[in-house]
Amino acid sequence: MSINNKKNEVELICIGTELLLGNIVNSNAKWLAEQFALLGLDHYRQSVIGDNYDRLKHIILEASQRSQILITTGGLGPTPDDLTTETIASAFDTELIFEEDIWKDIQTKFKTNKNIPNNNKKQALIPSGAKILPNPLGTAPGIIWTPKANFTIITFPGVPSEMKRMWDETAKPWLLKNYPSDFIFASKTINFVGISESLLVEKIQDLLETNNPTVAPYASLGQVKLRLTAHAKNKKEANILISPIESELHKRFGLHCYGEDDESLVSIVINLLRKRNETISFAESCTGGGLSAAFTSVPGASDVFLGGVVAYKNEIKTRVLQVPIDLIEKHGAVSAPVARSMALGVKKIFKSNWSISVSGIAGPTGSTIQRPVGLVEFYFDGPNFHESFKEEFGSHRERSEIQKLSVLRALDRLRLFLLT
Amino acid sequence: MSINNKKNEVELICIGTELLLGNIVNSNAKWLAEQFALLGLDHYRQSVIGDNYDRLKHIILEASQRSQILITTGGLGPTPDDLTTETIASAFDTELIFEEDIWKDIQTKFKTNKNIPNNNKKQALIPSGAKILPNPLGTAPGIIWTPKANFTIITFPGVPSEMKRMWDETAKPWLLKNYPSDFIFASKTINFVGISESLLVEKIQDLLETNNPTVAPYASLGQVKLRLTAHAKNKKEANILISPIESELHKRFGLHCYGEDDESLVSIVINLLRKRNETISFAESCTGGGLSAAFTSVPGASDVFLGGVVAYKNEIKTRVLQVPIDLIEKHGAVSAPVARSMALGVKKIFKSNWSISVSGIAGPTGSTIQRPVGLVEFYFDGPNFHESFKEEFGSHRERSEIQKLSVLRALDRLRLFLLT
Repeated sequence: MSINNKKNEVELICIGTELLLGNIVNSNAKWLAEQFALLGLDHYRQSVIGDNYDRLKHIILEASQRSQILITTGGLGPTPDDLTTETIASAFDTELIFEEDIWKDIQTKFKTNKNIPNNNKKQALIPSGAKILPNPLGTAPGIIWTPKANFTIITFPGVPSEMKRMWDETAKPWLLKNYPSDFIFASKTINFVGISESLLVEKIQDLLETNNPTVAPYASLGQVKLRLTAHAKNKKEANILISPIESELHKRFGLHCYGEDDESLVSIVINLLRKRNETISFAESCTGGGLSAAFTSVPGASDVFLGGVVAYKNEIKTRVLQVPIDLIEKHGAVSAPVARSMALGVKKIFKSNWSISVSGIAGPTGSTIQRPVGLVEFYFDGPNFHESFKEEFGSHRERSEIQKLSVLRALDRLRLFLLT
Repeated sequence: MSINNKKNEVELICIGTELLLGNIVNSNAKWLAEQFALLGLDHYRQSVIGDNYDRLKHIILEASQRSQILITTGGLGPTPDDLTTETIASAFDTELIFEEDIWKDIQTKFKTNKNIPNNNKKQALIPSGAKILPNPLGTAPGIIWTPKANFTIITFPGVPSEMKRMWDETAKPWLLKNYPSDFIFASKTINFVGISESLLVEKIQDLLETNNPTVAPYASLGQVKLRLTAHAKNKKEANILISPIESELHKRFGLHCYGEDDESLVSIVINLLRKRNETISFAESCTGGGLSAAFTSVPGASDVFLGGVVAYKNEIKTRVLQVPIDLIEKHGAVSAPVARSMALGVKKIFKSNWSISVSGIAGPTGSTIQRPVGLVEFYFDGPNFHESFKEEFGSHRERSEIQKLSVLRALDRLRLFLLT
């Protein structure tokens, strides 16, 4: 609620049949929603509508009944499909005015003065009384228009780069001035691993009920994140609100909590190894290079990561990693003894302080009754440390999920070893 | 319009405060919209709404006034935030029933019978009279429910993999049976590599103007796809419309066109090697396992992929791959002679028919004036074939982009070698 007690509800309508056909992802909606939160605007509803005069007019009038600000994207181009400006004008019984300044600007944006399509002339039409929202990158300007008391429409083209530039240069300053908010939303994300979303959520029932900051869980494969969003006068005050909840989460979940915001599990592990001045190498079967690729996705990984062997076939396990043939014949390639032999083999070749091996059934084929899809054997060998363990990720999982979960599990286990 | 003259309007409501805060992109909306088009369902409107009982109830009742089918995503989880099922039931004054079968299924999805969070019990509640939409991957089932004449609600969880599987296995067959359409939209995607989007688009100006099929370009890192979408009575007639455009594209772009729909470059390459009964191994430096991981992402890759060495540090290049130290000292690790020596080294170890080496500067550090970020050296060694080449992907690129482009380039080069 702003100082002047005016409500600050912003609604978004994204216009374009290509969105309704599923031809493109609506990345504009995500970007704008983030901007609304940063400005402290209340945002309760987004819609997508096609390039259709009647439906568009109807939804604009709907929005004018419930919101103070309407943001639209799309439909400002030169083709007959592009109906946004004329529909908005018609919704509020207002005539369109041909703006010479816009037309001049469009003309300069074409490389030559010849052959400017006549279609583009329509981009110079704006509702009488509207302010031009300039487009520095393209030929489609937007408008900022208040067709009735306490209701403003701001239009943007659908091209993301143009929309973003117009937002930053014109719309955002305008909104800051006309819809001042005496608060902002600021977020911090706390990252968890090794705990399911439902178990984590059960342990934070009380925190989920707090209002400021709010605590919201997001799960992705093998990981959970909690986003703490505070509502405060500024970033500093937001941090003061977030900090006690953050400490409480660390207290409750201990080592399950591995980092915050964009920190990744692999970057944490690399830092831990770097501090110890220790190196690592990998022997990968079912992950097929995924563990190595995770390490090398981080700049500077070469401080600790020497390399690895992808031993996808048994003959490579025996010939390159020196796993005895009879060990594979006796126990199978996905077994604790073979995983151990792989880890020791790669450590010997690479002369690293640590080695990890991963051997499992990623599926969809290759399983037996004893060894279902999703069974993965790991072996860790480090200075004064070695451990064998296995995981069953579940045979309902897809190949790529089993591979990703195996990489995460190896990283997390290593992190715990290095921390304790 | 279907044969029985029933309207087939489907509306989508995506539920989740994280969407309104701009925390995530609404990729579900794109995917589902595409599916609606493929079934010939009319789709005029999408909405996003937060985890709020009153607003959710209001929009569900709104949708029930204008559409015949309402699809929702999100809000089926175990937390107090997840309100979808109870709000839908309440919107139509219907009680929730505890379904023992769902609860049993949830219990089997947890590894042990102990410690199943009580929260999950709420996922077993569905409105009286609703049909269960099973979720093979997660604990949140959806419902298919017709709470009033000519209006059906189908709910999905927000997790994309779960939603997609539930659509394919249950919702899609149900819609095909209950909302048959006398036309469909059918699409075919043609995949290109080794040509920029702008160059490709310049060469198909004429095709971009066709109406049936429409031709729409989509670019991703290092690849371009053209989607041909036809509007026809059935799949067969759609193919008749698409086929001539497809032939024309093959004629214009030849080997730049590598496949269609979900065919990946790596699956094409694996099939080509399989046909020749040849094997391959990799020596990776800057891609750090990414090329191996690309191969092992494909089930059955072990027919041709023996494995590889990730030789991230120079000492590993020399000790494991037997690259002479003086070669590295003289030419640098990112050089044609070292790349050649790496490829020959790994081929010797793995005894494969083919080997590929990749050594480059992925950045952001490690560059020199002679060797900028983005410079990558490749060496291919095969039966009666060997070639050295380098690429400069550009120093403006991010580390992950250079790694991905290097993998793509290696795959594409190998494809061309195998085809000619």
